[in-house]
Amino acid sequence: MLFDFKLVETTHSKILTFETINPHIKKVEYAVRGELAIRAEEIKEEIAKNGPGKFGFETVVNCNIGNPQQLFQRSITFFRQVACLTEYPDLLLPENRNNVNTLFPLDAIERAQLLLKQIGSVGAYSHSQGIPYIRRNVAKFIEERDGYPSNPDNIFLTQGASVGVQSVLQLIIAHSNVGIMIPIPQYPLYSATLSLFDAKPVPYYLDEDENWSLDITQLTSSLATARDKGLDVRALVIINPGNPTGQCLTEQNMREIIDFCHQQHLVLLADEVYQTNIYQPAERPFHSFKKGMIGECGRRGGYYECTGIDKQVIDQLYKIASIGLCPNVSGQIMVDLMVRPPKRGDKSHPLYQKEINRIYESLRRRSLKLSSVFNSMEGVSCKDAQGSMYLFPRINLPPKAIKVAREVGKQPDEFYCLAMLNATGVCVVPGSGFHQEDGTWHFRSTFLPPEELFDGFCQRLEKFHKEFLAKYRD
Amino acid sequence: MLFDFKLVETTHSKILTFETINPHIKKVEYAVRGELAIRAEEIKEEIAKNGPGKFGFETVVNCNIGNPQQLFQRSITFFRQVACLTEYPDLLLPENRNNVNTLFPLDAIERAQLLLKQIGSVGAYSHSQGIPYIRRNVAKFIEERDGYPSNPDNIFLTQGASVGVQSVLQLIIAHSNVGIMIPIPQYPLYSATLSLFDAKPVPYYLDEDENWSLDITQLTSSLATARDKGLDVRALVIINPGNPTGQCLTEQNMREIIDFCHQQHLVLLADEVYQTNIYQPAERPFHSFKKGMIGECGRRGGYYECTGIDKQVIDQLYKIASIGLCPNVSGQIMVDLMVRPPKRGDKSHPLYQKEINRIYESLRRRSLKLSSVFNSMEGVSCKDAQGSMYLFPRINLPPKAIKVAREVGKQPDEFYCLAMLNATGVCVVPGSGFHQEDGTWHFRSTFLPPEELFDGFCQRLEKFHKEFLAKYRD
Repeated sequence: MLFDFKLVETTHSKILTFETINPHIKKVEYAVRGELAIRAEEIKEEIAKNGPGKFGFETVVNCNIGNPQQLFQRSITFFRQVACLTEYPDLLLPENRNNVNTLFPLDAIERAQLLLKQIGSVGAYSHSQGIPYIRRNVAKFIEERDGYPSNPDNIFLTQGASVGVQSVLQLIIAHSNVGIMIPIPQYPLYSATLSLFDAKPVPYYLDEDENWSLDITQLTSSLATARDKGLDVRALVIINPGNPTGQCLTEQNMREIIDFCHQQHLVLLADEVYQTNIYQPAERPFHSFKKGMIGECGRRGGYYECTGIDKQVIDQLYKIASIGLCPNVSGQIMVDLMVRPPKRGDKSHPLYQKEINRIYESLRRRSLKLSSVFNSMEGVSCKDAQGSMYLFPRINLPPKAIKVAREVGKQPDEFYCLAMLNATGVCVVPGSGFHQEDGTWHFRSTFLPPEELFDGFCQRLEKFHKEFLAKYRD
Repeated sequence: MLFDFKLVETTHSKILTFETINPHIKKVEYAVRGELAIRAEEIKEEIAKNGPGKFGFETVVNCNIGNPQQLFQRSITFFRQVACLTEYPDLLLPENRNNVNTLFPLDAIERAQLLLKQIGSVGAYSHSQGIPYIRRNVAKFIEERDGYPSNPDNIFLTQGASVGVQSVLQLIIAHSNVGIMIPIPQYPLYSATLSLFDAKPVPYYLDEDENWSLDITQLTSSLATARDKGLDVRALVIINPGNPTGQCLTEQNMREIIDFCHQQHLVLLADEVYQTNIYQPAERPFHSFKKGMIGECGRRGGYYECTGIDKQVIDQLYKIASIGLCPNVSGQIMVDLMVRPPKRGDKSHPLYQKEINRIYESLRRRSLKLSSVFNSMEGVSCKDAQGSMYLFPRINLPPKAIKVAREVGKQPDEFYCLAMLNATGVCVVPGSGFHQEDGTWHFRSTFLPPEELFDGFCQRLEKFHKEFLAKYRD
């Protein structure tokens, strides 16, 4: 049921003010959708209203969010055909089949029929943990991928990553002295959720000089320091491929991390959202089926799997899930498609394979091109992306720029990124939004702009950077 | 992007146990998806495997959740046509238009084109607060309905009611001494969320003898008691039409509630999810367009509107929303369709009107029939539903049944409902799951089973009730 809900205040002296609301919410920082993103929206609206007139560019390019389809990456045809048919099952009635057989391949029709038989209607609530049939398919997918048994009872389908991550962290954070180890730099979902639930981040630093690798001695010393301070450190978060850094862990490194958790008595939270966008597959232990390339992020679909977690604890995770009733059913369908794409021999397989390859090769080309552009800029250094859809270049900002930034109350990297947005329309996220080693400055940029616009986009960045340096050089 | 996330423990002595997890989560009760619902799933699975053999019924009927399409309520054709076309925009290409024009009415095609122009792809992340175009349509809808201005900047599209309610409550609950006034009985989303965020429920009782009406003197005395105890009471929740009670507030009553909030310095949270399922429209101030009848609950769509809330506070709500990135786009599209259904003169209007009327009249008939069945049972009394999709009959349980229930560690109403489920396959929710006045027993049942099955369903209930009374009569 769709709903209508009102939050109303009628008094002149407000009950809810910035001063009176939950202080943990005030402390939350979420740069990915922060000031830069808001300014980008303003510019877009102004261009839509009055044309590009006063700006030196015609469109805003959102490189601040990994949102492929916003930047015109095409969706996978088979996935959309099945989603379409499940939305309007009347198409499957005998009287419509002639027309429908012309528009849709038979395997998409059959998949839609199979899903509808299991689901009923995409407009009905499902099991709170996700449709059992789809969870079984996810478990099979994981088993085949990892060669390790997976139990559908321990899989939760959720409405996007944040819901899953927040439920799990909320469960672990039993009091305000709980510490959670997070990488620096990190995707701000983690730091934001720790602020929200009043836990203490225990940072460990990724080594930029070693391609943002994770060094176990870093983990050990960071944990020791936190425990010495009396923190109840309970869990370690790894993000692999890294976000914002795009690095991938080696198999050897993963084994060390699991040993570390075992020895140190830590729950491991492994965020492997982008595990199929791997651009150096030979060296990394991910399989190469590239299923993460489908870019259906607006669906808010996904899953998390519990391994070695007590049944009683899983029951509590189920209870949290049940308060939200169920994850949206269209998103669950997309999860099913992701774990069971067309197979070799299926009618839709050749097109599927072609579409996946095209996206993958294009992303790989764009990532190399953009990192080489960044590396050619004065004072900028950028590691090649090993995975995900992000680059995280480091910028040496001139002291004068840092001084001016501080004067206007901004972080120096934020100041640089705002100048970039105003000059070029390119919106990226300042490194400070992900935290970074003191005295270093970065920004995160996706490499998702469409290939045909890539040259123009790169030229605008180069021009801006030169002018910025010229303006603030001592 | 779809995601893959793992929660892993490797040690034998677990870090996460029932004893060590967040104690607030342990305290949460959520009966709507509790023991009864789990038992119902077990029976379903057993019937699917081994046939109905040992049960005295062939199917489980889920009257525990307002889930119309699970019980075969048909969806609105126009809504599904538009949703279908937005999923697979290739259908709108010139080469497909001949076939598509045969399958879809022109106004559905045009609406899909319009939405896609505004949205881009349903697979892309949108604005965290919801697609601006759709928020503008929601604001227009509210203005036309209420005759009171509505600002799209103050509207948040969300993934289902619980996400919206939880964000708002989390904001208000600044410390553990915050009190929130909730009706008793109440939909357990509220009590569960207050447990989760460690706030104190301040109950006010609805008057069953007066058709579950809300009495302002009850509010006043309940608030006074709570404030005397030193609670920082900040907000009043009303649910209208009531859930689980199905009552509707009169306009006079609504005005009193708003005055009460104004005088007592309270934020008003008005949950009006079911506002178009009103079966006594003449007496109640809802308009009669019945848009809530569409039953698309598996979408997880919806919105909340802030009125009189500080801009700075809304900015904080935006920040919370942005951590979840965005509500699922298909759900947002369904909100758009709900607030802009086919209008008189549109090609799809006659069918839309016919479908809505059919659902409405059928629900009304079923609600009257089921309440009359309940009222004919010995020791059961049930108010007619004024709105929503629930009945909340009161049962006088024999002392012996109460005694046996206590002996097996169950609430008496829970004991009765479990017996009902095992005997009839009908799953309802015990009144204790919604809280109720001490010493009274109820259960909540939807009246959603399909009309053609209604007689059999009612007979099973009557037979069970007689046998239950016979068994436990003194």
